[in-house]
Amino acid sequence: MNFSIEQLSAAISQYVPVHNFLGIELVEIKPLTVKFHLPFRPELIGDPRADRWHGGVVALLLDSAGGAASMTTLNNINDKLATIDMRVDYLKPGLGGKDIWAEAQVTKNGSRVVVTHMEAWHEIDGEKLLIAEGRGAYSAVREPINQD
Amino acid sequence: MNFSIEQLSAAISQYVPVHNFLGIELVEIKPLTVKFHLPFRPELIGDPRADRWHGGVVALLLDSAGGAASMTTLNNINDKLATIDMRVDYLKPGLGGKDIWAEAQVTKNGSRVVVTHMEAWHEIDGEKLLIAEGRGAYSAVREPINQD
Amino acid sequence: MNFSIEQLSAAISQYVPVHNFLGIELVEIKPLTVKFHLPFRPELIGDPRADRWHGGVVALLLDSAGGAASMTTLNNINDKLATIDMRVDYLKPGLGGKDIWAEAQVTKNGSRVVVTHMEAWHEIDGEKLLIAEGRGAYSAVREPINQD
Amino acid sequence: MNFSIEQLSAAISQYVPVHNFLGIELVEIKPLTVKFHLPFRPELIGDPRADRWHGGVVALLLDSAGGAASMTTLNNINDKLATIDMRVDYLKPGLGGKDIWAEAQVTKNGSRVVVTHMEAWHEIDGEKLLIAEGRGAYSAVREPINQD
Repeated sequence: MNFSIEQLSAAISQYVPVHNFLGIELVEIKPLTVKFHLPFRPELIGDPRADRWHGGVVALLLDSAGGAASMTTLNNINDKLATIDMRVDYLKPGLGGKDIWAEAQVTKNGSRVVVTHMEAWHEIDGEKLLIAEGRGAYSAVREPINQD
Repeated sequence: MNFSIEQLSAAISQYVPVHNFLGIELVEIKPLTVKFHLPFRPELIGDPRADRWHGGVVALLLDSAGGAASMTTLNNINDKLATIDMRVDYLKPGLGGKDIWAEAQVTKNGSRVVVTHMEAWHEIDGEKLLIAEGRGAYSAVREPINQD
Repeated sequence: MNFSIEQLSAAISQYVPVHNFLGIELVEIKPLTVKFHLPFRPELIGDPRADRWHGGVVALLLDSAGGAASMTTLNNINDKLATIDMRVDYLKPGLGGKDIWAEAQVTKNGSRVVVTHMEAWHEIDGEKLLIAEGRGAYSAVREPINQD
Repeated sequence: MNFSIEQLSAAISQYVPVHNFLGIELVEIKPLTVKFHLPFRPELIGDPRADRWHGGVVALLLDSAGGAASMTTLNNINDKLATIDMRVDYLKPGLGGKDIWAEAQVTKNGSRVVVTHMEAWHEIDGEKLLIAEGRGAYSAVREPINQD
């Protein structure tokens, strides 16, 4: 049996301890793209005077999103994926009290290397307020597709 | 009154909600450098099959370390620091059950821009096993030093 | 007299020695965006066996594009801009014999920090073949706008 | 016949067209590390008013250095190496009239991924004046070592 988007979806939403610990929710997963939602919690604040999300939490969320999007390029449950590196550009501070959404998109799906673009944002009055963008690079080791 | 390393130390170890939530401990802070310790907790695992730390937690820790080291370049309690961007290079997976240490060092202390180098590692049999390196860039807005 | 897009255009296309040396041509410049063209020359090859552009030339072109787009955010001929850092993601090798185009877009225009997104591509049969993407961060020091 | 450091040295110093075009000289190459020298030329200036090297030339030099250091991890003349991404942190402007040296060191030599640290500097009164640091990530495809 090959790797299905349903299996991947279940694994990401149920079996990643950090997702449960922080409250990261999988909103949508499709080939080459994934969307997460992270409801605001006071524990995720970095600067209590300014009431801002900790930037590292945004980085963690983008890392998760990029990794999950990259996993959709795998063929088989035994294929392996390792993050090579990640960059986050912080565009605006994350506002305390506001949830964060994040989306990742595969921009290169090579035989050995996968690259993703990620974005994190608030939704304010129905508008997307971009707070960070990211890039991830991943090393993929894929078994040939199983024909059974 | 100017900004002291003692005030900064107290602020970082007591008043950053994410540090308390994840269990990040300040080990040492000196001008231009800071060291953190993050004891292992099962909630911080990313891949339970392989028993690996979530890479995003490592990114969060490096982000905190780089930010704290940059804060030691400020003169005054009202000076401001914003993260411009951060890069993490993942060298080895973080092993479940093992604590992580992280250190940040300011490599450029400009009038407007601060750059830091960060490292995260396990200590295995007294040896440093490097798991990730990072770079951070920060925008600093400093008031002139108060002479009182 | 304030800084005009015409002045900037003249400066970029005529007075940057590296642009003349490599043959980098300014195609278009507008507020927040710039487009360059770099005709193929055999001197710009990095790997003669595989007949590929040198990746560093692509990095140089993206750096120039990001810097020029950032300059369009300045108000005055005396305003200063310094590159903080740059990242290049190499998506496909640059093919010998084919020209390269590059575009940069400002994605954050802050009072102190400017961030740009850059792309480099070949045009093959009227299609854009993306070869690299980049991110740049810049420190801007702007004088108040001159009202004369 | 396996890949020797002498072959690699000859290839890098003689057969890379961009190196000849810009005047990049190979100073030293050893397993996991390489050093280059780029004599100043007026054609490499980016800002003639301020008399500064073009930052993209520094990026190109760091890219070459990281790539060459990565090549020392290959076993065989047919092994392949592709740059995944590169980051440059600009610490100080490159001064017109002063030569630039650059060194790259492999910091991760994985079976599939190689990571390098790079530095570029002037030598002023026998002191190293660091102008930029970089990180590169490379995908390596190595044939098994030939035993003949």
